[in-house]
Amino acid sequence: MTITGHQLIGSRQVWGSQDNTFHGVDPSTGQKLTLTFSSAGAAEVEQACALAAQAFASYRQTTPDQRADFLEKICVNILALGDELIDHAARETGLPRARLEGERGRTVGQLRLFAATVRKGEWQGVRVDRAIPDRQPLPRSDLRLRHIGIGPVAVFGASNFPLAFSVAGGDTASALAAGCPVVLKAHPAHPATSELVGRAVQQAVADSGLHEGVFSLLAGASIELGGALVADPRIKAVGFTGSRGGGMALMRIAAARPEPIPVFAEMSSINPVILFPGALAARADAIAGQFVASLTMGAGQFCTNPGLVLAVAGPGLDAFMAAATAAVTNAPAATMLTPAIHGMFSKQTAELAGQPAVKQLARGLAPTGPHQAQAALMLVESADFLSDPVWHNEVFGASSVVVRCPDLETVAEVISHLEGQLTATFQLDPSDVETARALVPALEEKVGRILVNGFPTGVEVADAMVHGGPFPATSDSRITSVGTLAIVRFLRPVCYQDFPDALLPDSLRDAALKR
Amino acid sequence: MTITGHQLIGSRQVWGSQDNTFHGVDPSTGQKLTLTFSSAGAAEVEQACALAAQAFASYRQTTPDQRADFLEKICVNILALGDELIDHAARETGLPRARLEGERGRTVGQLRLFAATVRKGEWQGVRVDRAIPDRQPLPRSDLRLRHIGIGPVAVFGASNFPLAFSVAGGDTASALAAGCPVVLKAHPAHPATSELVGRAVQQAVADSGLHEGVFSLLAGASIELGGALVADPRIKAVGFTGSRGGGMALMRIAAARPEPIPVFAEMSSINPVILFPGALAARADAIAGQFVASLTMGAGQFCTNPGLVLAVAGPGLDAFMAAATAAVTNAPAATMLTPAIHGMFSKQTAELAGQPAVKQLARGLAPTGPHQAQAALMLVESADFLSDPVWHNEVFGASSVVVRCPDLETVAEVISHLEGQLTATFQLDPSDVETARALVPALEEKVGRILVNGFPTGVEVADAMVHGGPFPATSDSRITSVGTLAIVRFLRPVCYQDFPDALLPDSLRDAALKR
Repeated sequence: MTITGHQLIGSRQVWGSQDNTFHGVDPSTGQKLTLTFSSAGAAEVEQACALAAQAFASYRQTTPDQRADFLEKICVNILALGDELIDHAARETGLPRARLEGERGRTVGQLRLFAATVRKGEWQGVRVDRAIPDRQPLPRSDLRLRHIGIGPVAVFGASNFPLAFSVAGGDTASALAAGCPVVLKAHPAHPATSELVGRAVQQAVADSGLHEGVFSLLAGASIELGGALVADPRIKAVGFTGSRGGGMALMRIAAARPEPIPVFAEMSSINPVILFPGALAARADAIAGQFVASLTMGAGQFCTNPGLVLAVAGPGLDAFMAAATAAVTNAPAATMLTPAIHGMFSKQTAELAGQPAVKQLARGLAPTGPHQAQAALMLVESADFLSDPVWHNEVFGASSVVVRCPDLETVAEVISHLEGQLTATFQLDPSDVETARALVPALEEKVGRILVNGFPTGVEVADAMVHGGPFPATSDSRITSVGTLAIVRFLRPVCYQDFPDALLPDSLRDAALKR
Repeated sequence: MTITGHQLIGSRQVWGSQDNTFHGVDPSTGQKLTLTFSSAGAAEVEQACALAAQAFASYRQTTPDQRADFLEKICVNILALGDELIDHAARETGLPRARLEGERGRTVGQLRLFAATVRKGEWQGVRVDRAIPDRQPLPRSDLRLRHIGIGPVAVFGASNFPLAFSVAGGDTASALAAGCPVVLKAHPAHPATSELVGRAVQQAVADSGLHEGVFSLLAGASIELGGALVADPRIKAVGFTGSRGGGMALMRIAAARPEPIPVFAEMSSINPVILFPGALAARADAIAGQFVASLTMGAGQFCTNPGLVLAVAGPGLDAFMAAATAAVTNAPAATMLTPAIHGMFSKQTAELAGQPAVKQLARGLAPTGPHQAQAALMLVESADFLSDPVWHNEVFGASSVVVRCPDLETVAEVISHLEGQLTATFQLDPSDVETARALVPALEEKVGRILVNGFPTGVEVADAMVHGGPFPATSDSRITSVGTLAIVRFLRPVCYQDFPDALLPDSLRDAALKR
């Protein structure tokens, strides 16, 4: 497929109205890539949002089968892009091809899971209160409730999952599944990848006979573009995965609108891992190996990267640190997604390493090319951790801090001082269960997902997944951005009172309720 | 029970630290009532929020039976207040005793319905994905999800329902049902009523052996008090029913916090009633009678008051207007809740009556005392309605505007220009169903509840009720503030991955899932 650098506005392609063009960068060389991309401006935001608003009425009323077929058609079209998609994504992100192939599988699997969810229909959340005509003192009306789409949604592609959390990623899939048109703000770090997937979605809209406004793709390197999109009165909700600063900026814009709208931003998490004494005594080396694999996976560029280790001082923790130090020391440097991300990683790890309270346990192997991150493992004592907020900041990349605690009470105290997190992880053996039990309530109030004897970097796309958590992990602890529950972000309830059966939507008619 | 004018902070009563005391006002006389109430300041906000945060850990982990028993104990204690409660409420609000007795019934019915909802347990929203150990290429973990309370909630008592949307009203009931402690900001228009109900809740907390911080009541006449409460970092969500200006002010404070929190504000709605030709031809007089009864009920002081009538010009509409004019002309003036509300009603109805485009159809009977509202019915042509935003503002009270349209297409056009609403109502006969069908989709996107052949002022407390709607009807179209679905506002999901059964919360253990 030809990549042209145009904006995709409904069924058309339009050269962006902003003067500045932009290019992807190959982070493994630092070189600008050759393709030129146009930058969308106010005119394209206007056109895309107008089309999305027009499309909403018909799109939200598609049947479950029509909508599910459309989601599945997107999968077909993405897979039909073949190696070209992987080639561009690898070049633009520095991610290994195998990772990207896996991510493509995750992306289409996610779309198919939402297609199945749409077909099952439980997302409509149907509730019925039958009339009670002879109730005293007043009769009860017949009340029937279903959920419908909230309206056009602005979705921001994430840098770290150029497929699974980008153009046709989880936010797009759940918004489309909910019956909401999507105006996609592509991440400027992977413009060719974005355009390819955008064209696959655009083609699926046409293939499915839907209103062209169901999907538009806007690209541009300026931050003003995203702000203008969130400010557009036709946009009714926002999905975002990225930095705390970026998410907060969008939240401020959304809150300042004449009509404020919800922003579902997944932002910042350091994902504590708690190592219990029994587990450390039994298998410190194995835990260390798995931990470092999780830490360095994808150059550490996961929202769920384990950036914090909590444990009680002792021989078990010493053994863990020795094994983890050896593993990190031998970890190859890995190309980061963008020069900017690499710059921030280098700055933050240097800042932490310069703290008087820190002991640097290990750095990974030296870089062999530009923008490669050297993994980092540090040690601080719990008292120092508690006294300096610098340790609570997310470092995006393969950097983790072991917090050595004198006792389990201090572990609990450290937990109580943490901000909201996406995950917390227990490494425990049967002998640790009662100790762990005491920490569960505090963690439930801090995190969206608690794992036992795993590592947080795998986020299953499933019905019971929560990829969310209290602020600043996300902007709204009441939601998840991964898994089928993500659809509720984009739905709102409507009640029909005393409707004649013939006037009710299909899913609320007597015949449908009897099924 | 003695009313002392104290703040209720956990189990204690505390004289508010602000210098200024305040009094209720009898709106039927305009006289200050004799009881003196203290004003809470920063110290009481601090104490109440600190206690609420302490109480959260134990309260959210109460069993469903414990929590339901507590809600039912609140009912017992409210009913035990007997006539004293009704006496004070009638004096402070000017509402008739029969209305207040009905509202008390609604209030305890609401608490009991939430108690039953808590016992049923579906609010936990349990989801389970079983492990698939032999899945290729990677095994699937065991994932189990439940919802828990979001944390301490600030609830603002509403002026227009001194019982059902005040201290132990719908927001409090749903937050307590969700496992969230409540810090209640009492409405200054009914301080004695608030203190009585607050003491009933405080006593129920003690009777139930719960942490005292589960409930506190703050009173004060300043708007700074509510702002300080919403700004407190321990508050995790806000429930509010009131004016658009008040709701927006709280939304701005919540969004500007270092940790922004959701505000569930139910604010402003003019509740269009659409009269179809068949219904008008068959029963214009009957519709007019029911309409005026709904319009003037409770001096028109309902969020769902029918402030707008849409119909096509013709003999049917003429007959409706004649009958409605006669009924409004004979409607007694009624005391409004507060002097300020009456002042605003008078100002707004005068402003509308002074519009060059308006024809005043009727005013109700002249006042016989202070702060009595004279019902108002006006007529504007659709073209004038569409050209002036003044017609879109809520008038809180018994004022309604008939918008005469040349044809049904214009009715649709008027609907498309409306802001978000709580309700829309159809008056239709079988011959109108196909005409009405064409309007349903546009209304679904504008309102939370659509009624057929009823009037919107009755809001059933039920599973399928939606008392919500797009902005500015509420701050968040994805929720309802009446009915059992209101509980989801105060819940967030937590996922447990690969937990040993013994470490799981009870509701997610194998034994519970098999039941």
